[in-house]
Amino acid sequence: MKEKNSVGIVKSKKFVCKNPLKLNSGFLLKEFELAYETYGKLNLKRDNAVLVCHALSGDHHLAGRYSSSDKHPGWWDSLIGPNKPLDTNKFFVIGVNNLGGSHGSTGPKSINAKTKKPWGSDFPIATVEDWVNSHEALITSLNISKLAAVIGGSLGGMQAIQWAIKFPKRIKHAVVIAAAPNLTAQNIAFNEVARQSIITDPDFNKGNYYEGEIRPRRGLRIARMLGHITYLSDDVMGSKFGRKLKYKDYQYNFNTEFEIESYLNYQGDKFAKEFDANTYIRMTKALDYYDPANGSKRNLSKVFKKIKSKFLVVSFTSDWRFSPNRSKEIVKALLDNNIDVKYAEITAASGHDAFLMEEPRYHAILQSYFNKML
Amino acid sequence: MKEKNSVGIVKSKKFVCKNPLKLNSGFLLKEFELAYETYGKLNLKRDNAVLVCHALSGDHHLAGRYSSSDKHPGWWDSLIGPNKPLDTNKFFVIGVNNLGGSHGSTGPKSINAKTKKPWGSDFPIATVEDWVNSHEALITSLNISKLAAVIGGSLGGMQAIQWAIKFPKRIKHAVVIAAAPNLTAQNIAFNEVARQSIITDPDFNKGNYYEGEIRPRRGLRIARMLGHITYLSDDVMGSKFGRKLKYKDYQYNFNTEFEIESYLNYQGDKFAKEFDANTYIRMTKALDYYDPANGSKRNLSKVFKKIKSKFLVVSFTSDWRFSPNRSKEIVKALLDNNIDVKYAEITAASGHDAFLMEEPRYHAILQSYFNKML
Repeated sequence: MKEKNSVGIVKSKKFVCKNPLKLNSGFLLKEFELAYETYGKLNLKRDNAVLVCHALSGDHHLAGRYSSSDKHPGWWDSLIGPNKPLDTNKFFVIGVNNLGGSHGSTGPKSINAKTKKPWGSDFPIATVEDWVNSHEALITSLNISKLAAVIGGSLGGMQAIQWAIKFPKRIKHAVVIAAAPNLTAQNIAFNEVARQSIITDPDFNKGNYYEGEIRPRRGLRIARMLGHITYLSDDVMGSKFGRKLKYKDYQYNFNTEFEIESYLNYQGDKFAKEFDANTYIRMTKALDYYDPANGSKRNLSKVFKKIKSKFLVVSFTSDWRFSPNRSKEIVKALLDNNIDVKYAEITAASGHDAFLMEEPRYHAILQSYFNKML
Repeated sequence: MKEKNSVGIVKSKKFVCKNPLKLNSGFLLKEFELAYETYGKLNLKRDNAVLVCHALSGDHHLAGRYSSSDKHPGWWDSLIGPNKPLDTNKFFVIGVNNLGGSHGSTGPKSINAKTKKPWGSDFPIATVEDWVNSHEALITSLNISKLAAVIGGSLGGMQAIQWAIKFPKRIKHAVVIAAAPNLTAQNIAFNEVARQSIITDPDFNKGNYYEGEIRPRRGLRIARMLGHITYLSDDVMGSKFGRKLKYKDYQYNFNTEFEIESYLNYQGDKFAKEFDANTYIRMTKALDYYDPANGSKRNLSKVFKKIKSKFLVVSFTSDWRFSPNRSKEIVKALLDNNIDVKYAEITAASGHDAFLMEEPRYHAILQSYFNKML
């Protein structure tokens, strides 16, 4: 049976870049590969391409399924497809796995050509700037001179901002959802606890575990459990779980008693089986580092001076990880430069995670914005 | 040199209770010891005693120092002493280490009389109700029929509430600071992440580590780092640490780069050396479990019906762990019963931790309240 409005069965592709990429850290990556997927068709004018940037634990598999028996579609399947807000009848949509990732792009578990062994701890930390530079190489290889839009939520939104700053002539629209111009001390603090839980896990072995049998799941599990608390709002946790118990009465032991505990443990276990610890700590570092105004005395308005693209900025009322006030900092700096910006603050209970959800008003705004784009 | 307004050099005492204590869990503790300290003098009428209940990581050492070379005074030294808000010229102040603690009261590291070995994982989980029952035995042994007040912050505030509910005739005032009538799902979630980080630490050995050389510090360290994030407000973290770097530039490695990271790692290391992992997970369980309205269809007003004491309830604007709204739930249920309650919402930037700090308006309110008490 054909799924309604689905992009259908999709296949992952690979872009091999033989040109060296100099990273922010100074590290020279002699060559690299990026796993990517595309949906819809590039038109004759080659002006309908939309690049979707992923967040902390995302990848290039945005929509559709890998086979008819594939249980889970891509992570933004609710948004991307024929007649969906990001309509693949009109747009050529590109998803790409970031450098340092573990889903096909060059990263810690890839083979280091020099040693013929997995990179492990030797793999450099890639930043938002590095990712955008590598994405630009991919876009160039696809013979696209100007993207209709770059869109992303959270860490993905930071990449959309960076595209607008770094390649002002190659992007018409930046769609920045549930993001911030940099992390607060509290944001960094949560990331550091997550990293420390991974790094101090004895199974992590300083990041060199690919050749052994054991994967460092213990710390990664804690990191994900903690992450989930920050993705949800206090309110939605209250209404979904509250103080609901698994059993009728307290058990007075250290097994899970409350449903919220079951939920977190389940999420932690699942993630730790699927995701790579080295990738996780690198993604959090990219979040920590991104701060485009740093070189300009923290004045975002100055940094935005050369931006040519239009912006849609979206925030969610209950998002306490990247609160609406952080989005407004972006909007303010854009307005300071007379840049065309639309801003939507969506009333939603689900916290930071709202950007991944099929919230009707949110999707309606994206649909309307994309409809007018071409 | 004599410290100003200090209770001076103090000594820990021990209360041995030979009467069995039946815990909420059904566990019968055949006998137990409580470490406690007292400051000031019990007056002739024996009506000037104030019991101070401690929070998660506190103990019975409230004020003063153990020797002239002791670097750190008790944890509430700013509040307790001659001419301080809780004035030891007037009041007889009692601090007690809770059951399950690791500072002298019977707990996981105590010797189990039956096995002649440390209790370890066999030590039962004690609840807020159990603690209050054990404190009552201590107060009785001191020949005090009615306490002038029970005071506590956070988990300590829950004990003050429980005293008022359980022993209405034995307490004149309850002073409940930065507390809540129960934990939210988000509160429980943070506790569960902390517990999981401790329990899954291989060195924890299911809680039986006292006879070996190694103490389970890894998970406890993560738990404390996480705790610190929730004790501070986003704002105070921003103003204290912001995005300040340890070095001039990014290092692009996994050592600490931001000052907030240094702070958390330092706090985590320090705590993990000093505190006991078994105690920590038990204290978080007591927090999770406390929910006096549970037996009364979640109607706190009904539960408060038999309360005879007066209340002072204090909250702090930037406390997101136990927000002012949670304090207002307590106030509302008291007002429903025409109980004499004063409520102060203190404008303070420092979050939940404010209850431990020498915030002038906060201390002035406590001073004024205690001044009028006798």
